[in-house]
Amino acid sequence: MIAPGVWVDGRAEGLPADDRGLAYGDGVFETVLCVDGRPVWWDAHLSRLERGAAVLGFVAPERDVWQRDAERALAHADPGAARCVLKLLLTRGSGARGYAVRAPSRPRRVVSIGPAPEVDGAAREGLRLRWCRTALAVQPALAGIKHLNRLEQVLARQEWIEAEIDEGLMCDTQGRAVSAISGNLLCLTRRGWLTPPVDQAGIAGLCRARLLAEGLVSEAELRPDDVMAAEALAVCNSVRGILPVRQLDQRGWAVGGALRDLQRALARLEAAFHHSFLDDALA
Amino acid sequence: MIAPGVWVDGRAEGLPADDRGLAYGDGVFETVLCVDGRPVWWDAHLSRLERGAAVLGFVAPERDVWQRDAERALAHADPGAARCVLKLLLTRGSGARGYAVRAPSRPRRVVSIGPAPEVDGAAREGLRLRWCRTALAVQPALAGIKHLNRLEQVLARQEWIEAEIDEGLMCDTQGRAVSAISGNLLCLTRRGWLTPPVDQAGIAGLCRARLLAEGLVSEAELRPDDVMAAEALAVCNSVRGILPVRQLDQRGWAVGGALRDLQRALARLEAAFHHSFLDDALA
Repeated sequence: MIAPGVWVDGRAEGLPADDRGLAYGDGVFETVLCVDGRPVWWDAHLSRLERGAAVLGFVAPERDVWQRDAERALAHADPGAARCVLKLLLTRGSGARGYAVRAPSRPRRVVSIGPAPEVDGAAREGLRLRWCRTALAVQPALAGIKHLNRLEQVLARQEWIEAEIDEGLMCDTQGRAVSAISGNLLCLTRRGWLTPPVDQAGIAGLCRARLLAEGLVSEAELRPDDVMAAEALAVCNSVRGILPVRQLDQRGWAVGGALRDLQRALARLEAAFHHSFLDDALA
Repeated sequence: MIAPGVWVDGRAEGLPADDRGLAYGDGVFETVLCVDGRPVWWDAHLSRLERGAAVLGFVAPERDVWQRDAERALAHADPGAARCVLKLLLTRGSGARGYAVRAPSRPRRVVSIGPAPEVDGAAREGLRLRWCRTALAVQPALAGIKHLNRLEQVLARQEWIEAEIDEGLMCDTQGRAVSAISGNLLCLTRRGWLTPPVDQAGIAGLCRARLLAEGLVSEAELRPDDVMAAEALAVCNSVRGILPVRQLDQRGWAVGGALRDLQRALARLEAAFHHSFLDDALA
């Protein structure tokens, strides 16, 4: 059985079942927003993929290989949709039983294309969040990279089925707020926009990195109480941009000017994250 | 490309590349020692697989399905070898992008057959171990089960390349000794044979469980200092049985009578773990 819209090392076929990505989650991935056939923040995605593979101890393929993969997949994107999402997944490749890497790795690429999520409504109105009981383990050796060991997120996302809840917030096992299940956390306090560090748990998101690099956001440890007391909250990632939070468990927030300013700043950095409502002075 | 000796849902083909086992490590596995075509501790392996799937939130296939898988794979085992290892891997099945489980899962089986490791020498002479720098994260939500998120073990096993080192011992991020990379730790102290708990990190090994159930071993928290001061050490799992430790970093141990007694006790519980040297009064 071959999944549609998926290519393994450039071919539309299944994955060899001895792949270490399956056996141990031994690999990394990226999800790339594409607008009118252009992958947004392409170099940053490839840089993170390469950094992640290096942390795991193998070398990612050359960038022109990914470029050809992307072109092949984008040629199969829905021609009626301006936006789509390209997923790049890289494993260490096939291996014999056992954790040891016995031969030089031949990393394997799995590239797929799919629809982009509709985010205009959430970017305008905001998300409804809950705190998750599932905690992120503290693991400095793996924190930050976007590896394939994601059971914590899978468990956290299973904590609710209500359609009224859009996302979950996760703490680490030491009680510090870390991130949403699928995005980083932005928290407006008297000290400005803050986001938790990701050197103990969590993923170093590209939208987060861009906001940090521009000085729009600073890194700071946050407790759940800090989050609940925030003037404003948002979740960000490289596919959805900045999405305001309008509710977190029992507390609600009006989506105010500071959030629109931050969304506008991101839209100036990358036009893919512009929304027409940001032009509206009343927004 | 199809890996040899691997069956996906009973067919010799590749894995659909949208499988959540690949995407997130969303699944569990077992490695089963088979002797003369008989899977050792078969029911216990299936019980742990079922328990693990339940922790992740899905239902494992009926046992007769695994039975047929095992028979198919064993028919392809090397006819010249009395022992082989059967690997059962179960994923939640295919899924769309995103952590949410959007439809009832159709779990997928990946069954493979391979050679059994030669253990007679190690069972007699003992293993040479080192302490790993990579720590196991504390994650009570996943501890104990044999899930597919195994990057910590992959990183730990990459810490050395010297063929003189057979195994690594791992602590958790709070400094407690937990286990070997591929087996549980047994530690002889004045309080008898002890093994660390696996409710915060580590895997609840079947050999360990059997020794605990028989009262041959007790559970106790152990610090690296306790391990270094032990009268004897061993590593155990369901494929290799009990393997003595003859060296751990700078300290060496003679493999003495207490270890032989424990090996003999295990051999009485399960003949697959008998070694001819155990009959030798001088062994």
